[in-house]
Amino acid sequence: MKYISEIVKADKSAINAAKARQMILAKPPGSLGKLEDISVKMAGITGSVINDIGQGCVLVFAADHGVTEEGIASAPKSVTLSQSINMTQSKTGMSSLAHYYGERVRVYDVGIDADYECEAIINKKIRYGTANIAKEPAMTKDECIRAIFAGIEAAESACRDGVEIIGIGEMGIGNTTASAAVLSLITGVSAEDVTGRGGGLTDEAYKRKIEVVKRVVGLHKPFCNDITDILTRAGGLEIASMCGAYLACAKMRVPAVVDGFISAVAALCAVKLCENVRDFIFMSHLSDEKGYKVASDELGLKAFLDLSMRLGEGSGCVIAFSVIRAACAVMRDMATFSQAGINEEYLDEIRKMER
Amino acid sequence: MKYISEIVKADKSAINAAKARQMILAKPPGSLGKLEDISVKMAGITGSVINDIGQGCVLVFAADHGVTEEGIASAPKSVTLSQSINMTQSKTGMSSLAHYYGERVRVYDVGIDADYECEAIINKKIRYGTANIAKEPAMTKDECIRAIFAGIEAAESACRDGVEIIGIGEMGIGNTTASAAVLSLITGVSAEDVTGRGGGLTDEAYKRKIEVVKRVVGLHKPFCNDITDILTRAGGLEIASMCGAYLACAKMRVPAVVDGFISAVAALCAVKLCENVRDFIFMSHLSDEKGYKVASDELGLKAFLDLSMRLGEGSGCVIAFSVIRAACAVMRDMATFSQAGINEEYLDEIRKMER
Repeated sequence: MKYISEIVKADKSAINAAKARQMILAKPPGSLGKLEDISVKMAGITGSVINDIGQGCVLVFAADHGVTEEGIASAPKSVTLSQSINMTQSKTGMSSLAHYYGERVRVYDVGIDADYECEAIINKKIRYGTANIAKEPAMTKDECIRAIFAGIEAAESACRDGVEIIGIGEMGIGNTTASAAVLSLITGVSAEDVTGRGGGLTDEAYKRKIEVVKRVVGLHKPFCNDITDILTRAGGLEIASMCGAYLACAKMRVPAVVDGFISAVAALCAVKLCENVRDFIFMSHLSDEKGYKVASDELGLKAFLDLSMRLGEGSGCVIAFSVIRAACAVMRDMATFSQAGINEEYLDEIRKMER
Repeated sequence: MKYISEIVKADKSAINAAKARQMILAKPPGSLGKLEDISVKMAGITGSVINDIGQGCVLVFAADHGVTEEGIASAPKSVTLSQSINMTQSKTGMSSLAHYYGERVRVYDVGIDADYECEAIINKKIRYGTANIAKEPAMTKDECIRAIFAGIEAAESACRDGVEIIGIGEMGIGNTTASAAVLSLITGVSAEDVTGRGGGLTDEAYKRKIEVVKRVVGLHKPFCNDITDILTRAGGLEIASMCGAYLACAKMRVPAVVDGFISAVAALCAVKLCENVRDFIFMSHLSDEKGYKVASDELGLKAFLDLSMRLGEGSGCVIAFSVIRAACAVMRDMATFSQAGINEEYLDEIRKMER
């Protein structure tokens, strides 16, 4: 994709300047931990040491999954549509959080398997859900590329409307199964180790889900040469769109925030398409869904919230926005040692410090 | 203390009603993890299922430590005063965060070893720093009780002024040494396992610090029969005040938020004085300071932020306020299954779920 070649790395000189400033802020160096790292990463993203992040937005991509006919989800397919509608009314977990924090939510239908009346959902439907990936490819290559570009356009549109930080969320009953298969195909990690209980499954259904993921991986592996192959054959329409949204955030130099398992797998797809995207991605919370850690380890990025959440939707992103903003506030507002009137003796000690 | 006998447990019926409401909110049960637990705990604290937490305040107790003469701190004693002043001007890590989030900060001098001009610091000085605990008791029993009551009065005063959530912070060069000794005396855990690098120490100074903590514990152990003995002999004026502030929060039925290591040790002192206090305490972040985990395990409470911070001051509390408020917003604003238009079929599935 030509789009990918236009994504450049974070601004190294801004990163160095930000690190230098963190060293002279009046605190033991490193004592603000990940808040320091976040502020430094933000500098690399925007090119400025001092950042004041404006409006945030969670982009939710919604789509259905044919694989639900294998009995791998705790909720019926109809919940994809009903919760997508509820999200536009601040009634769900993520959207009630977004409303509380004053962040925007935009819900995109890229593949809900139903017709309905809801003007608040942005209609970019590629097709009515994926095919059953346990039996055939999820979609065609052309549909996959169109889904990726639906995500790109969603993120670019948000940026044009003044959004300065973007959370990447989803709604799609069955999508932890597709995400597990995608993750296994990317990393080679076994179905057992990437498959979790999703919304909540009985032991019996969980065993079945692992078997289904195994079957999906076995069926498509011989035909997967790259990320778009994997997304086309074992992915989902919303997962492809989320991947596109990450690419666009990197291109537009806006921070992109990962939510839980599905969001992390989509982020990994984007990073595998273009290494530079990693510089623009923040993790948010350590999801309770098995496989999350496989994805985050492969991304090489660490969460900073530990809330034992496994809801999805983008729920972790909203809380993370607040922490990222706070990290920027510290960088901007804290006094330096000289402004704080702390004497040279201490500065000498600091220079001697081994960590 | 008569004060302690007046602290009663959380409201069990409000907790049960809150748990019942969480079960009918439109999400897989438990999928919002600790956000659910937080909202339930809040119900027990206030007696209401629905909570909307108003003004927050970080109470900072500042005092000096005679044990600094043993060379166990990376910063000179003078930093206690200079940072206390800086905190009143939103220049430090915690206070710049508080300013950003719109939370109040009140700084109490309960034992700074200096005279100075700064009206913004509330003067409740008990004495000019503790004695060197490696050689003699930190203070007298009477001073310890007065320090505890200074903390009680600070928290009660904040509540009278309309504060609805309180963070318990500190400033005191040398206080990780005193806290480590207190923690070891309470739990019996070895000096090696409770002593961290504090603000940041060279390997050599760190070894010295462990030896000092060992010496402190050995010197005072034979004379420590209860928590006030431990605080009197091995504690600090600010640690005693923090302990008092936790007691008062529980008495006033206001949530008290723990910051890092020192704050956790003070919380443990309060809980050991009165078990019921635990019901009113929230942890915030998993501090990087060694020993924090010993204290939080003993408290039986878990942090929900993982920021690798080890600054102290109350810096973790401010971010935690925001997460606790968000948890309450979810409880208040999310739709129930019936409001969300999710059908009975799914509810049946949920009833079958095994976790």
